Amino acid sequence: MAEKIDVVGISGSLRAKSLNTALLRIAQTQLPANMTLEITDIGGVPLFNQDLESNLPESVVTLKRKIREADGLLIATPEYNFSIPGVLKNAIDWVSRPVKESALDGKPVALIGAAGISGTIRAQMHFHNIAMFTNMRLLPRPQLYVQQAFQKFDAEGNLTDAATKEKLGQLLVAFAEWIVRWKS
Amino acid sequence: MAEKIDVVGISGSLRAKSLNTALLRIAQTQLPANMTLEITDIGGVPLFNQDLESNLPESVVTLKRKIREADGLLIATPEYNFSIPGVLKNAIDWVSRPVKESALDGKPVALIGAAGISGTIRAQMHFHNIAMFTNMRLLPRPQLYVQQAFQKFDAEGNLTDAATKEKLGQLLVAFAEWIVRWKS
Amino acid sequence: MAEKIDVVGISGSLRAKSLNTALLRIAQTQLPANMTLEITDIGGVPLFNQDLESNLPESVVTLKRKIREADGLLIATPEYNFSIPGVLKNAIDWVSRPVKESALDGKPVALIGAAGISGTIRAQMHFHNIAMFTNMRLLPRPQLYVQQAFQKFDAEGNLTDAATKEKLGQLLVAFAEWIVRWKS
Amino acid sequence: MAEKIDVVGISGSLRAKSLNTALLRIAQTQLPANMTLEITDIGGVPLFNQDLESNLPESVVTLKRKIREADGLLIATPEYNFSIPGVLKNAIDWVSRPVKESALDGKPVALIGAAGISGTIRAQMHFHNIAMFTNMRLLPRPQLYVQQAFQKFDAEGNLTDAATKEKLGQLLVAFAEWIVRWKS
Repeated sequence: MAEKIDVVGISGSLRAKSLNTALLRIAQTQLPANMTLEITDIGGVPLFNQDLESNLPESVVTLKRKIREADGLLIATPEYNFSIPGVLKNAIDWVSRPVKESALDGKPVALIGAAGISGTIRAQMHFHNIAMFTNMRLLPRPQLYVQQAFQKFDAEGNLTDAATKEKLGQLLVAFAEWIVRWKS
Repeated sequence: MAEKIDVVGISGSLRAKSLNTALLRIAQTQLPANMTLEITDIGGVPLFNQDLESNLPESVVTLKRKIREADGLLIATPEYNFSIPGVLKNAIDWVSRPVKESALDGKPVALIGAAGISGTIRAQMHFHNIAMFTNMRLLPRPQLYVQQAFQKFDAEGNLTDAATKEKLGQLLVAFAEWIVRWKS
Repeated sequence: MAEKIDVVGISGSLRAKSLNTALLRIAQTQLPANMTLEITDIGGVPLFNQDLESNLPESVVTLKRKIREADGLLIATPEYNFSIPGVLKNAIDWVSRPVKESALDGKPVALIGAAGISGTIRAQMHFHNIAMFTNMRLLPRPQLYVQQAFQKFDAEGNLTDAATKEKLGQLLVAFAEWIVRWKS
Repeated sequence: MAEKIDVVGISGSLRAKSLNTALLRIAQTQLPANMTLEITDIGGVPLFNQDLESNLPESVVTLKRKIREADGLLIATPEYNFSIPGVLKNAIDWVSRPVKESALDGKPVALIGAAGISGTIRAQMHFHNIAMFTNMRLLPRPQLYVQQAFQKFDAEGNLTDAATKEKLGQLLVAFAEWIVRWKS
């Protein structure tokens, strides 16, 4: 029987009807049998300020603990200004520090995104660099970026595009294998 | 007589003793005669959330106005995780939107930074992309990144390295010319 | 009457039926009245080797001269492995050196590309950095990347997509204005 | 007894006195007991042209075979124009294609470099993206970039800086472990 895998999911967008948050919810319906996915919010984390590190905000403590305890991290993010959102980068800046207590060091991570023309692939380019520095184990394949996302979700945030849903399921299976590989 | 140029400066670091904020303060002492530099804080801006755009937070309104009214924007930023800080990206995400009301469109910008080994040059790489999307007019040369910054400032945040101070002054002169070029 | 503008065009792909080379040929049919576009080949340039700089290969001398004499440089390039082709980078490496004799310093450049899903936008991300170092004046807008290019050209390399052709014409007009701005 | 590991090394610079080629030679003196390192030249490979793929040049056939048969690939490269050299990218473009016959798919790779101020870290940023697309297994840590390289080698290309030599040895040990991990 397959080992149990607990994944935490974070969205790079805070808006209520975010397609990326929706993508995480859809991921919850496409999980391999041995995987759980808990979505956690990064909107309660303050702006990063190193002066606060001596007395870490409770929201940061919680976020770091959730990521550290999880077997993997699933990030769904939009692309803003040819890069990842400041909101997501801010959360990464918090949980990656101090370097010796980083919650990301060696952590298996899968990155997905939904957007218009670019499908977030420029944001993913920047993320490759961030993943390299923080020593994440970034799932290399399959890569999932949902182009023309507005045509693939309905008004309630349901993914109506069957091909995308299938790809998402395949990515989650590959992510499960990736996580197991790194646990051994 | 040279045209008057008003520049607004923002730091990518919120900590009180930030070397990048210090760099902005030192820039205020090296300005060309016709340039003013007002440092403004981005720590009061909330995390970006598109749902708030219909009723823009006062701090964002103020930041956008300051940047829009300025002739140029001087950014001093550290590098976090091979990219720009989430704090800085978050401010950019706010003021760049909605696209038709971006405060950055066509804005002359100069980017400087202080850090350890890298001198923030990886952060500057990502910034090139962001500048391209937002249609900033990013000063191409000279580029200033202060490597081994901890050895070049004293405990009070004074820049003790004469060569860096001179380069900063030269950059500000070049920035003044760059701004005048784009005003015409 | 508008000033005459001479542009040199290079393709990042050497294959005979390259869609990017085809894009340059189509650009020749969409030029503003005062613009000329001469396509030049970079396939005859050897692999860069600094030891050859003391006795520069004739093909490099010619390429540098053509770019230096042109008012602007139009590059059409595919994307290979999430970056620009080695072939294009090799040509840039040659003509950008020695630094004081770079043919790219201050040169107005427009970048376009045709590809599949990505439309070459990842190659364009890397090019932003290269443009910043070499001090090119890279046209910021409009940006043109032809997605799903295989559906937009016929077997003879004719662009059958009217919308793309129109965008290309608009880009060339903007490029002409950009060049004139930098000449003044 | 440790498993035998055969690594192939390529340099991104073709000049005879290249410090990056020298770095590979020094690596040959710092190998773990179970590792071999054969340096192979990429200067004989022609410029990439897809039209030649149906009748692959002998130099490309050889390079692909060497990389495919090796347990790992060690790349030492300078930085040109804020990116990797065209010469290196050209070799990568050849051996990564056609996608189903890529010699890089799943290949453990370590990247090092020697340069002036930047130490090649901008080239390494672009390489992260290329590694992600080609599905290389890029060694995340330690990272080695030799800054102010000209002061650390003598005229014969000997590395005179003991700290750098030690770091190189540590990287090779980590690379050996990385390769073994991926073989299992």
